[in-house]
Amino acid sequence: MTVAGDMLQTYPASLGHLDREKLTRCIQECFTCAQACTACADACLSEERVAELRKCIRANDDCADICLTTGRVLSRHTGYDANITREVLQACAQACKSCGDECARHADMHDHCRVCAEACRRCEQACNDLLTSLG
Amino acid sequence: MTVAGDMLQTYPASLGHLDREKLTRCIQECFTCAQACTACADACLSEERVAELRKCIRANDDCADICLTTGRVLSRHTGYDANITREVLQACAQACKSCGDECARHADMHDHCRVCAEACRRCEQACNDLLTSLG
Amino acid sequence: MTVAGDMLQTYPASLGHLDREKLTRCIQECFTCAQACTACADACLSEERVAELRKCIRANDDCADICLTTGRVLSRHTGYDANITREVLQACAQACKSCGDECARHADMHDHCRVCAEACRRCEQACNDLLTSLG
Amino acid sequence: MTVAGDMLQTYPASLGHLDREKLTRCIQECFTCAQACTACADACLSEERVAELRKCIRANDDCADICLTTGRVLSRHTGYDANITREVLQACAQACKSCGDECARHADMHDHCRVCAEACRRCEQACNDLLTSLG
Repeated sequence: MTVAGDMLQTYPASLGHLDREKLTRCIQECFTCAQACTACADACLSEERVAELRKCIRANDDCADICLTTGRVLSRHTGYDANITREVLQACAQACKSCGDECARHADMHDHCRVCAEACRRCEQACNDLLTSLG
Repeated sequence: MTVAGDMLQTYPASLGHLDREKLTRCIQECFTCAQACTACADACLSEERVAELRKCIRANDDCADICLTTGRVLSRHTGYDANITREVLQACAQACKSCGDECARHADMHDHCRVCAEACRRCEQACNDLLTSLG
Repeated sequence: MTVAGDMLQTYPASLGHLDREKLTRCIQECFTCAQACTACADACLSEERVAELRKCIRANDDCADICLTTGRVLSRHTGYDANITREVLQACAQACKSCGDECARHADMHDHCRVCAEACRRCEQACNDLLTSLG
Repeated sequence: MTVAGDMLQTYPASLGHLDREKLTRCIQECFTCAQACTACADACLSEERVAELRKCIRANDDCADICLTTGRVLSRHTGYDANITREVLQACAQACKSCGDECARHADMHDHCRVCAEACRRCEQACNDLLTSLG
């Protein structure tokens, strides 16, 4: 069991119809992806051909911010507002798709982009899975 | 001229068709609203009847996070991705609407909720104005 | 191997004398603690006796923010500035100590505070270990 | 009166011996500096000679994160913990000094670095003034 899972399990009020497994997974992927994107932006910055990685750095910066916010919103359950959860999940899935696509273009040349693209794909999937389960 | 306006004016590459005035206004409202929501969550927490303000605190917490992320995404122009800008603006307008509505319910009783509701309304409007201008 | 570890290993330039194991551990604990504190603030908010948990919620809010910033600063290696690394690690260790102490006071009564206190202790330790290794 | 000032004035409990003017100023400078640093990192990224601005981008990234966290911590007054306030103010003053110094080195060549350096100097000063007033 992970800490995010433990925190969900010890939440003292009702979680309603939320799928706990999908929610836990999505929270974890959001924080993992945020760290990966923060590190990938920095790794791109140290590459010799940084000028060719501008779009990738930008995508990483946005994706890191959006994943952190999404991970935090999903970590709260009191006064649940389905509209906000849906909006941030959609924004997060979009940011992960854009960043994953961009990183994937450099994955052969830069290992950090390969690792980051994988984190983006998993987070995008987790957001979409959770969105679907929300109905 | 504000610092956000100065930063936009000194951006060394093209901003494309973005409406600079609406963009500057939206960036400023996002950061102002994020601060107001952070402070309002804390002010609610110190109220004697904090138990009645749970939903308001949650709305403030989410709105603060989403406004900060939106303000940061809008402060970046390199490698512009219209899809991400639209998604975060929609999420931000939704968060500001939810938080503004919630704070407005307590505005008569709590001055901090009144000030915060006004900040949320302005930010919601600025997000929607920018969204419209994006076409 | 974790994603944070993979990202560190694929960083394309020199990491200098940084202890990679302690650095990876600290990054992970920062993000884990940030999530736990965000969730614990929210769990406290839903407790019947929320009025008695004001100080705990505040400590959680600060600790979450500081851990996220620390985790992000530590995820960057380009243009390393030892002074900033030291300052944020000290602030993070202090925030984790304060929050861990506060959560520990309620650990018997609230399981979420118990889980969160443990995350704070681990993060505090990881920050102090990394600080010591920096010399 | 600014929104940050209004929020401080409507805080419903005691602010203790905190200097309200210095506190309000510091909160505003933190958020302003965070926006400027976010925008300056992005502006540097679009410069033709981005490879020479690596250290500046890194300094901006860290300073933005630290200023945001400091601005949020300072916006909370419930359950005040002087140790945490001091630690984040010290970290913020250091980050602003490092980033201000780095941006100042490019201020003649890049207007965005000039504007950002000024925001960093003001924020550093505001942090140090508030620190001094805390005793």
